[in-house]
Amino acid sequence: MQPLVGVVMGSASDAEVMDAAKAVLEEFSVPYEYTIVSAHRTPDRLWAYGKKAADRGLKVIIAGAGGAAHLPGMLAALTTLPVIGVPIRSTQSLGGLDSLLSIVQMPKGIPVATVAVNNAANAALLAVRILSIYHPQWHDRLIAYQEKLYHEALNPLRESAGRFDVIAL
Amino acid sequence: MQPLVGVVMGSASDAEVMDAAKAVLEEFSVPYEYTIVSAHRTPDRLWAYGKKAADRGLKVIIAGAGGAAHLPGMLAALTTLPVIGVPIRSTQSLGGLDSLLSIVQMPKGIPVATVAVNNAANAALLAVRILSIYHPQWHDRLIAYQEKLYHEALNPLRESAGRFDVIAL
Amino acid sequence: MQPLVGVVMGSASDAEVMDAAKAVLEEFSVPYEYTIVSAHRTPDRLWAYGKKAADRGLKVIIAGAGGAAHLPGMLAALTTLPVIGVPIRSTQSLGGLDSLLSIVQMPKGIPVATVAVNNAANAALLAVRILSIYHPQWHDRLIAYQEKLYHEALNPLRESAGRFDVIAL
Amino acid sequence: MQPLVGVVMGSASDAEVMDAAKAVLEEFSVPYEYTIVSAHRTPDRLWAYGKKAADRGLKVIIAGAGGAAHLPGMLAALTTLPVIGVPIRSTQSLGGLDSLLSIVQMPKGIPVATVAVNNAANAALLAVRILSIYHPQWHDRLIAYQEKLYHEALNPLRESAGRFDVIAL
Amino acid sequence: MQPLVGVVMGSASDAEVMDAAKAVLEEFSVPYEYTIVSAHRTPDRLWAYGKKAADRGLKVIIAGAGGAAHLPGMLAALTTLPVIGVPIRSTQSLGGLDSLLSIVQMPKGIPVATVAVNNAANAALLAVRILSIYHPQWHDRLIAYQEKLYHEALNPLRESAGRFDVIAL
Amino acid sequence: MQPLVGVVMGSASDAEVMDAAKAVLEEFSVPYEYTIVSAHRTPDRLWAYGKKAADRGLKVIIAGAGGAAHLPGMLAALTTLPVIGVPIRSTQSLGGLDSLLSIVQMPKGIPVATVAVNNAANAALLAVRILSIYHPQWHDRLIAYQEKLYHEALNPLRESAGRFDVIAL
Amino acid sequence: MQPLVGVVMGSASDAEVMDAAKAVLEEFSVPYEYTIVSAHRTPDRLWAYGKKAADRGLKVIIAGAGGAAHLPGMLAALTTLPVIGVPIRSTQSLGGLDSLLSIVQMPKGIPVATVAVNNAANAALLAVRILSIYHPQWHDRLIAYQEKLYHEALNPLRESAGRFDVIAL
Amino acid sequence: MQPLVGVVMGSASDAEVMDAAKAVLEEFSVPYEYTIVSAHRTPDRLWAYGKKAADRGLKVIIAGAGGAAHLPGMLAALTTLPVIGVPIRSTQSLGGLDSLLSIVQMPKGIPVATVAVNNAANAALLAVRILSIYHPQWHDRLIAYQEKLYHEALNPLRESAGRFDVIAL
Repeated sequence: MQPLVGVVMGSASDAEVMDAAKAVLEEFSVPYEYTIVSAHRTPDRLWAYGKKAADRGLKVIIAGAGGAAHLPGMLAALTTLPVIGVPIRSTQSLGGLDSLLSIVQMPKGIPVATVAVNNAANAALLAVRILSIYHPQWHDRLIAYQEKLYHEALNPLRESAGRFDVIAL
Repeated sequence: MQPLVGVVMGSASDAEVMDAAKAVLEEFSVPYEYTIVSAHRTPDRLWAYGKKAADRGLKVIIAGAGGAAHLPGMLAALTTLPVIGVPIRSTQSLGGLDSLLSIVQMPKGIPVATVAVNNAANAALLAVRILSIYHPQWHDRLIAYQEKLYHEALNPLRESAGRFDVIAL
Repeated sequence: MQPLVGVVMGSASDAEVMDAAKAVLEEFSVPYEYTIVSAHRTPDRLWAYGKKAADRGLKVIIAGAGGAAHLPGMLAALTTLPVIGVPIRSTQSLGGLDSLLSIVQMPKGIPVATVAVNNAANAALLAVRILSIYHPQWHDRLIAYQEKLYHEALNPLRESAGRFDVIAL
Repeated sequence: MQPLVGVVMGSASDAEVMDAAKAVLEEFSVPYEYTIVSAHRTPDRLWAYGKKAADRGLKVIIAGAGGAAHLPGMLAALTTLPVIGVPIRSTQSLGGLDSLLSIVQMPKGIPVATVAVNNAANAALLAVRILSIYHPQWHDRLIAYQEKLYHEALNPLRESAGRFDVIAL
Repeated sequence: MQPLVGVVMGSASDAEVMDAAKAVLEEFSVPYEYTIVSAHRTPDRLWAYGKKAADRGLKVIIAGAGGAAHLPGMLAALTTLPVIGVPIRSTQSLGGLDSLLSIVQMPKGIPVATVAVNNAANAALLAVRILSIYHPQWHDRLIAYQEKLYHEALNPLRESAGRFDVIAL
Repeated sequence: MQPLVGVVMGSASDAEVMDAAKAVLEEFSVPYEYTIVSAHRTPDRLWAYGKKAADRGLKVIIAGAGGAAHLPGMLAALTTLPVIGVPIRSTQSLGGLDSLLSIVQMPKGIPVATVAVNNAANAALLAVRILSIYHPQWHDRLIAYQEKLYHEALNPLRESAGRFDVIAL
Repeated sequence: MQPLVGVVMGSASDAEVMDAAKAVLEEFSVPYEYTIVSAHRTPDRLWAYGKKAADRGLKVIIAGAGGAAHLPGMLAALTTLPVIGVPIRSTQSLGGLDSLLSIVQMPKGIPVATVAVNNAANAALLAVRILSIYHPQWHDRLIAYQEKLYHEALNPLRESAGRFDVIAL
Repeated sequence: MQPLVGVVMGSASDAEVMDAAKAVLEEFSVPYEYTIVSAHRTPDRLWAYGKKAADRGLKVIIAGAGGAAHLPGMLAALTTLPVIGVPIRSTQSLGGLDSLLSIVQMPKGIPVATVAVNNAANAALLAVRILSIYHPQWHDRLIAYQEKLYHEALNPLRESAGRFDVIAL
């Protein structure tokens, strides 16, 4: 099926984080592709991926990168599709602040939709929200998903006997 | 005309930053509304705005807020629309890091598409990119916009006589 | 017994931190309730909890949350009760700075009484101090508690034979 | 009239920030005292102030300090009253982060209720919330105050003709 | 004369900072070119500049950029020449930390030689040091330059009569 | 023997860090005392310790504390002796930045000689440097200590056969 | 008169900050010298100053430096005298954090007594405290100085008629 | 063979990080030396190493150091060779930010080419890039190295069967 979301990351080791995006897209039955594009090690591939993304039928790009993370911003410069950036805490140094600032602080003209450090699941949910604008089926699933979140949040009130107070409001 | 983008901010003083979003939306002829919703001072209005946004026909919400900035995240919890957050550097303290982290570090389940500190123009451009997925007219305008960026960037090579070298590549 | 303090947290996993508040409240025999309210996953419950807290007889709210922590600030917007915020270091990224700034940097009009990162015990002690203003029994217990702190601090002088010098002053 | 709130600060220059607390307490007709207590320059006065505060009839202490801000925490160690700390951005260096961390990161046993950097108004509002628990008049005033905030936030919708959209929800 | 150093920056406004590099290169009579290449606004030009730099005879590239600064790192990915990055403090937010981390935290494989925030003069001096390895004339000039620094540092001892003590060592 | 250096810390658990100060003082045969003084839990003892330190014959105080670390600064306010502060990284949050800023950012009038986070050994060495001004025996030992550092630094050149190059200069 | 304190700084422009040290040393009639030593621009002078300081009769060194501030630490490596470091906020970037960390985070073996950013007055007061250990005249003056601080802190209570409450304790 | 690159570090324990530079230099067959020079513990050796480096035939210096890292900057002050600094995260505190800022924030006149925290491999690659300017053999090897990076980055597409999508572009 034609992928609507392209999930890319700078190296195979980033998949440890980015697999959470994959899981969400599958949960929502969103067709996606999942591959490696490195801004620094495969610049030609970056170039081709960005330039061809819209013509290849993608609607949203999710890009995860760490450290001096240039992948999301460069893709955003090479396409008009919305690009979602996932800052990956790639080292023990600096707590992911380097990845976050490298992705979010884009100059006027070229936006990247940045989510929380290592939060690839939210990148996928943001992609679903974007697609849901014109696809009622995902709109309905998002409503169901938020209801699921509601119940999952409150399940421990009933399940962890005595640990929490059940307070009906 | 039916607004497609709702631009909201926590207080009138935030308009100094958020007007840049307005300018971009007008440049792209995107129908929008522009109003005040304060998470902390008008929580009832926050609730109503978030709950009714989709039914009122909005497709994207842009929310600007500063300090302990809760507006974008709470709206995202109350709607399934994509919410774009603009961290506003509201005080001279902490350089806007408080606004940025309060908006971007959302927990799994509820994403906010965060842009750079004070960069409301990019929030609007991100909204246009999202709308352009299924509206060819904005797709074409975005391509024209990126060409304009290209020329504006290089104009000084010709205009600032002698300041820069014109290097054809 | 009518709870005077409401202890709430965003998810069951936060109880690892928030149980320290529970322990202090039990040590002081302060009636409390202990439950889950998530700003982002259960916004309706947040709404109801905040709006009804005073009428339900609560006198103080303690709210723990991590990342883009909106729970304490939103509760403070929905009630006139004093709200105490506990920043929870929810991830390995950013060292809890995100939680702290999201809670403490509230705008003028809506205060949150913020304690140290992960220090739920102090949140409970602050609640006891507040209640002690008009309840002599807790005032007396607080004096006893501070004497206990004094002795616990100095016990190692006597118990860890030779490790420390006992210096009478 | 017997002061219920003691507002103290480390030096006269801090009054530029702390006067906002004074203004709020007067708006709410809360009896207060307003004076200088320096942890480092007047330690004897710090000791006496902390030790005698409860006996002198105070119910809440608000302490503002900057840099290595020890005043709120030391007062909290010397009394059982709730102490509210206002981090003052005293220099151009470090953006107030030094003041904030020096006040909020108190060890287990001795809490300080910390508000946002330079936000003395919120410290006073927090004191009013605390007093309102057992004083209905302040409870009522707080409800009125929050309504005032609501209207002030939305006034620009009507007053700044055309700048904002009035959107009834 | 064939430029040996290419000085590039993301926008004309960066010249305010980068002119200091120009001044140093002229002081050392190093042939250079000075132009605009924007990673985000002119990605095609970025590609061409990086790919052709070595063939065009350049030996060192100096690249200045601010915010989510991708220019130095992307050039380094597209060439084998040494690339020197100048983090430009482009906004009042975050004190230039965003620019610094976006440039310096490059992943293994693609280095960028990063200098201090806004210190374009040092970028040019580093380029001269690199060129001096095999060009004795610049080696000699660098020795003379460091002697000049020595005397400039100590001139105030003699010129600011009485302000400093002249201490011969 | 009359202690010349008083080593104090806020709690017994800080001894894990402060024992390094003890070890250095013993290596230099500097008479010292080693005890617990908590600014927040034993304020009376803090008071007495600071006020009596000079009369008790101490010449230097070393104080270790973590989080909102008030012990060094308050002792400095209560004595005229030089006070050396050791910021202790007491929690996993914030990387010790809270302890460091709470100790070093003292206001004009009351200095604390701050050393690196967790570096109690250096606090002791600083005390020895101070005492050595008027005690030739410690001056000589410090020279010997620095020679020992020199040799310890270079020992691996000889001992780790082949790992390092021995380069005589 | 033989200087006991050597006050050095990296460049003449640092005197704007370091003059506060001069003023304090003159207030206490401590003989001092005041000169420029740059770690980076005058390394020979740095070496000579550090190596000869003790033999030239100095007892304490105060060194002010900004950015990657190496002057205090290198002097400490070259002498056994106590070295006091003043972090100077030399640029608008990074708020002085670079200077502070470059000075305070010294490795085991070579301590620098660090004071607050830009607080040269405290460096001088720390030098006086050190000298006072064996010079009763400075001990007495320090006691008088602390009394002066006490009165200066409280003068506004009487002088700013009505602004503050005079509260005798 | 005459070493062209001098790799130095402050202590033997830094070799854990710096060995990655060694590995790269050997991969490129660049003659190098590998030794210990401590700015603080062996200042005389620092002095001699810096002063003699150029005469000893070195072309580039790589210096790794942690905490208040003065080694790269002091070497840069003592030589005209290009000096590459590797910030080493030496402690669990502060995430390496201290090392990074101590190395990169050099004042005008004395540059240090700084690479990412703990990224000694990139320091070596930068040295190879510098040497390649006038040594075609390293230029060719760098091109081969970048091709190797390209293939290594994409190998997982083929090897991790099904984990990633192979997308030809």
